[in-house]
Amino acid sequence: MVAPVRAEPLAPDAILRLEADRVVCLDQRRLPDEQVELSCRSAAEVAEAIRTLAVRGAPAIGVAAAYGYALAAARGEDVDRAAEVLLAARPTAVNLAWALREVAAAADSAERARAIHAEEVERCRRMAVHGAALLPPGARALTHCNTGALATGGVGTALGVLRAAWEERRLAHVWVDETRPLLQGARLTAWELEQAGIPFAVVVDGAAASLMAQGEVDCVVVGADRIARNGDTANKIGTYGLAVLAWHHDLPLYVVAPTSTVDPELASGAGIAIEERDGEEVTARFPARNPAFDVTPAALVSAFVTEQGVHRPPYADSLPVPARVAR
Amino acid sequence: MVAPVRAEPLAPDAILRLEADRVVCLDQRRLPDEQVELSCRSAAEVAEAIRTLAVRGAPAIGVAAAYGYALAAARGEDVDRAAEVLLAARPTAVNLAWALREVAAAADSAERARAIHAEEVERCRRMAVHGAALLPPGARALTHCNTGALATGGVGTALGVLRAAWEERRLAHVWVDETRPLLQGARLTAWELEQAGIPFAVVVDGAAASLMAQGEVDCVVVGADRIARNGDTANKIGTYGLAVLAWHHDLPLYVVAPTSTVDPELASGAGIAIEERDGEEVTARFPARNPAFDVTPAALVSAFVTEQGVHRPPYADSLPVPARVAR
Repeated sequence: MVAPVRAEPLAPDAILRLEADRVVCLDQRRLPDEQVELSCRSAAEVAEAIRTLAVRGAPAIGVAAAYGYALAAARGEDVDRAAEVLLAARPTAVNLAWALREVAAAADSAERARAIHAEEVERCRRMAVHGAALLPPGARALTHCNTGALATGGVGTALGVLRAAWEERRLAHVWVDETRPLLQGARLTAWELEQAGIPFAVVVDGAAASLMAQGEVDCVVVGADRIARNGDTANKIGTYGLAVLAWHHDLPLYVVAPTSTVDPELASGAGIAIEERDGEEVTARFPARNPAFDVTPAALVSAFVTEQGVHRPPYADSLPVPARVAR
Repeated sequence: MVAPVRAEPLAPDAILRLEADRVVCLDQRRLPDEQVELSCRSAAEVAEAIRTLAVRGAPAIGVAAAYGYALAAARGEDVDRAAEVLLAARPTAVNLAWALREVAAAADSAERARAIHAEEVERCRRMAVHGAALLPPGARALTHCNTGALATGGVGTALGVLRAAWEERRLAHVWVDETRPLLQGARLTAWELEQAGIPFAVVVDGAAASLMAQGEVDCVVVGADRIARNGDTANKIGTYGLAVLAWHHDLPLYVVAPTSTVDPELASGAGIAIEERDGEEVTARFPARNPAFDVTPAALVSAFVTEQGVHRPPYADSLPVPARVAR
């Protein structure tokens, strides 16, 4: 079953938008089978959409939370309570906390929320330009989870880089880790790549090492959910293993994320809270452990790509850190 | 849903047996939801059961092929043709070829087939004793795929070692890689461990690295589908990645397999044919690559356990190689 080729990524407001009485998001749980919008009529409903992964991806949940806060303000809800509920929806991604501080500090939260969305779109565009230049011509890139339009509301982080590299004819092929347990790779990244007409193949997460050993991978490009000031990076479970494998096979690992993903409060990865999700996402029949993220030490990252450019070690010096907003 | 605790593993003839007019196997595709037997009334039907993974696991498919050949002989089928069809069912496991040579060379193929089965049971028992001694007290072992009674017709290879270590009170916990795409870990190993009353948790394949980094794994214990004379090892896709990760975290990797898994014809892993299975096992919706196995270089294996004992590097000297049977 082949979907019609569409060169353009989804429009930002097709992923997420604020209307007068609701926040509307594309329900990512239903993809790729159905393209259905979900209407959230309160901050609590936005939090639930984030918690249940109808909206996911660090930048996108930041935007969704900002819209949720603005909706609460428009409805005359207790905005502090709304912020608490939104913040508790996912503990790992720092963009959520960042976006909530931004809208709380703004005179017009709806205006600021829409500006945050527009800024993420612009950050994606810049990251894509900076990152694409890192890929060698004919690159066969391996990626994990989903870091595209769906995850950002813009062109994407890691997937935005791959899209730009494709447009610059630097990219030959994408290996898509299926990304268990929730298959963000096999469902969402594959769907976005198919629409963009970029050649790809989905593989099980356990196949990455073998592809690398056989010389079928030139680089690994991933996103991030939270980055410490020293460059330690929390991202979707499986990323750390890929980082070790890339290191072992002497392949570069690039982490692509907006500066809003850098946590100014966090000196190293040791302080990152890892969300443990319900074991039933893995198996409903037997006991399971289900950490949603892992932490990749900075030493395994070849470079970070942010909207400001490409950052090389030592990251404590090179990584841009967003200003702390008074709370 | 908790199944009744049963300390004993499945009896060998509950997994596989030869009757007068059929080969009967426990249909592993239906586990853990249903415990259903499948009757194969010709060598071709046995080959189909192997190809479709109703019977799987290197030792078990060797036994099944031997029974299939004996069935063909009993039915007056062309046994050379039967051997060809059986051999083509799975290209990677060498036990299949080994078992077929054994029954073809025997005066009474049914008698020899049953003897092979009994020998695998006895080999498993011995591997379990040798291997259990490698585990430190309180060990938390990580395993991949299924290497238990289902895979062998005996007590298992890697899982037999874990069962023996549990009985010797050396084992505290088993991390079970779910083993995509066919979930032999989450379906079959979890089922066997639950019945044995051994504490375990299923994890997605991408979580192993993070567990290792957090100090929650003491050793990795896996089976093998084909071992070259130098110790290079083909096993379920994902094993090679685990081997690199174990190496990176300074954890031992033990490969447990009967000597029938060592291929006397194969000097190194470079000559191992890797079965590529249908991409639909990964995703029915998008393009996929689906290698069923990968090759772990001998240098990443801390020790092999066979029925003859524990074998340390250099494996070209220490690994027992089965005698070549004239063809």
